[in-house]
Amino acid sequence: TKRYRIALVPGDGIGREVLPPACAVLDAVGARHGIGFDYDPFDWSCERYAAEGAMMPADGLDRIRHHDAILLGAVGWPGTPDHVSLWGLLIPVRRRFRQYVNLRPIRILDGVPGPLANAPDVDFVVVRENVEGEYSEVGGRLNRGFPDEMAIQEAVFTRPGVERVLEYAFTLAGRRGKDLVSATKSNGIVHTMPFWDELVAERATRHPGVAWRQEHIDALVAKIVLDPGRFDVIVASNLFGDILSDLAAAVAGGIGIAPAANLNPERDFPSMFEPVHGSAPDIAGQGVANPLGAIWCASMMLDHLGHPEAAAEVYGSFTHVLATTPVRTRDLGGTASTKEFTDLVLDAI
Amino acid sequence: TKRYRIALVPGDGIGREVLPPACAVLDAVGARHGIGFDYDPFDWSCERYAAEGAMMPADGLDRIRHHDAILLGAVGWPGTPDHVSLWGLLIPVRRRFRQYVNLRPIRILDGVPGPLANAPDVDFVVVRENVEGEYSEVGGRLNRGFPDEMAIQEAVFTRPGVERVLEYAFTLAGRRGKDLVSATKSNGIVHTMPFWDELVAERATRHPGVAWRQEHIDALVAKIVLDPGRFDVIVASNLFGDILSDLAAAVAGGIGIAPAANLNPERDFPSMFEPVHGSAPDIAGQGVANPLGAIWCASMMLDHLGHPEAAAEVYGSFTHVLATTPVRTRDLGGTASTKEFTDLVLDAI
Ligand SMILES: CC(C)[C@H](C(=O)O)[C@@H](O)C(=O)O
Ligand SMILES: CC(C)[C@H](C(=O)O)[C@@H](O)C(=O)O
Repeated sequence: TKRYRIALVPGDGIGREVLPPACAVLDAVGARHGIGFDYDPFDWSCERYAAEGAMMPADGLDRIRHHDAILLGAVGWPGTPDHVSLWGLLIPVRRRFRQYVNLRPIRILDGVPGPLANAPDVDFVVVRENVEGEYSEVGGRLNRGFPDEMAIQEAVFTRPGVERVLEYAFTLAGRRGKDLVSATKSNGIVHTMPFWDELVAERATRHPGVAWRQEHIDALVAKIVLDPGRFDVIVASNLFGDILSDLAAAVAGGIGIAPAANLNPERDFPSMFEPVHGSAPDIAGQGVANPLGAIWCASMMLDHLGHPEAAAEVYGSFTHVLATTPVRTRDLGGTASTKEFTDLVLDAI
Repeated sequence: TKRYRIALVPGDGIGREVLPPACAVLDAVGARHGIGFDYDPFDWSCERYAAEGAMMPADGLDRIRHHDAILLGAVGWPGTPDHVSLWGLLIPVRRRFRQYVNLRPIRILDGVPGPLANAPDVDFVVVRENVEGEYSEVGGRLNRGFPDEMAIQEAVFTRPGVERVLEYAFTLAGRRGKDLVSATKSNGIVHTMPFWDELVAERATRHPGVAWRQEHIDALVAKIVLDPGRFDVIVASNLFGDILSDLAAAVAGGIGIAPAANLNPERDFPSMFEPVHGSAPDIAGQGVANPLGAIWCASMMLDHLGHPEAAAEVYGSFTHVLATTPVRTRDLGGTASTKEFTDLVLDAI
């Protein structure tokens, strides 16, 4: 049996309710494939911040440095400023572990109706740059509180930082055999987006088999709503990717069940898998959270660890439950508990 | 008769085909209200750039400085890099004339189906900051062409720049009697968005009658798709407003007919009105462009010039044509020419 050490960071709210189902699914599918998991839980969270003044210990990242992967539930809780919880945990993990690809699969699943009147087949992937760009600590504030106060935010795009995520996206598009769209805004943003465009054009020459084009972010969000079926792989900067991936998940009806993978493709560091839904304070503690996002994350983790068949089985099991039963958690209009839904997925495996 | 001097900048492609209908409508409604218009045409465009190396003459802005308003058709043409055409014309006009509010009304119109399965009543306004923020010439490029190349883009938010657009948005929300949503990303963007949030909270204390909340841009784009009926006024930075207004127009089915007003609320400088659709090279010159966006712009211009009844008549005339006839231009699935549709609107006035 091959064994993996998984760092479990349930975090806040329903993050704590959706990771146990994901682990149960991993154990079940692992048993059929000769794979085992050892889970190390870490209590890093806004609760910890309230009690100890930090989201995680000073040496937190060292403690999970050698794990094979990280499963994160959700980070954030009313009372803790967002930038504290995010820059105190999520973002440092992404950066220190060079998880420079944020991968967001977008699919309309049978049994999960989306908001569009004419929902075509939707099956695409947003590849988001995940460690640099518009999210940065560079910049600051002048003349605080005075009439001439100002704030400056620097977006920093580096050639290696952009090239590696483009390489990932072009390779993925080549493997999927379809096309690549690069999100830009080089008509409004003067320095970084023209640079991004140049690097895309450069990189394209190494992937002559991939058809690609670029779209300005404003036109692109409109097209995702009007014709989501035409996309296959979209590559975008940190901020644009953040916006596009949530928009696309909404269009696919899956904002509450979407998974995200924060990947270090070189495997020099552990990658991190987190459902997109957040901590959902309004329903936390009631046992009604939808575990699907976390279970989908488990599938992505298996794929990343080199077990595509096991990954496909997990994906197949929850899509089967959705397509063949009316059992749904509250967010999808049903009355099932987290446990009821999870049990069906486990049965399907 | 009150007379207005209007600077006409048809620009490129279908920009040239949609301004004459807008002028015809203005003349017709003006005749009924004792308002007259003198139009001064300017050939500023990508064609001019190709011929003379500049989108407009060096003293271009001085030439329209004292006009009462500017009607712009569309800017952009294949072969002219976007940043040339935009930073050579559109953006300098916005900035030099302190058109710091970009106003985008979002409505689902009777007879123009949107993409959503359950289209509720949609009637909201995006108030976009229009002259500073993420669009800036500050920043640059290091080590061009080398492996350690990088590009830096500075977003600059000033207290007066943010306060004035917030004041406009809060006042508008107060007048509409509903609520205000501020778009932010203070969980990812460290310096400018927390500053924006603080200024929103400060400004709110001067408008105690306005209910307001803030939403992160990623969550907000999802909500606009899932529940557009819940919005009334959205205020956003330059980049976020650009993204939100095109997204919202798509959700409302109106990407091809949406108008935009670039306002200098103090009226120290002329304001500019431009349909959102762009120059549409694929259909330019065929007489089939949809003039609705430009006509809706004419309505917004009348309102800005202090003629709300005339503005309402224009709005009423094209919504009446849409609601009571099947006549549509090609973009809306019909076969009518620009002229056929315009004539119906003129009849309705
Ligand atoms: C063309 C472009 C620079 C412009 C913008 O982003 O401001 C356009 O999208 C708009 O919304 O008017
Ligand atoms: C919480 C926030 C900082 C984060 C981001 O924008 O990266 C989240 O939206 C995500 O997509 O993982």
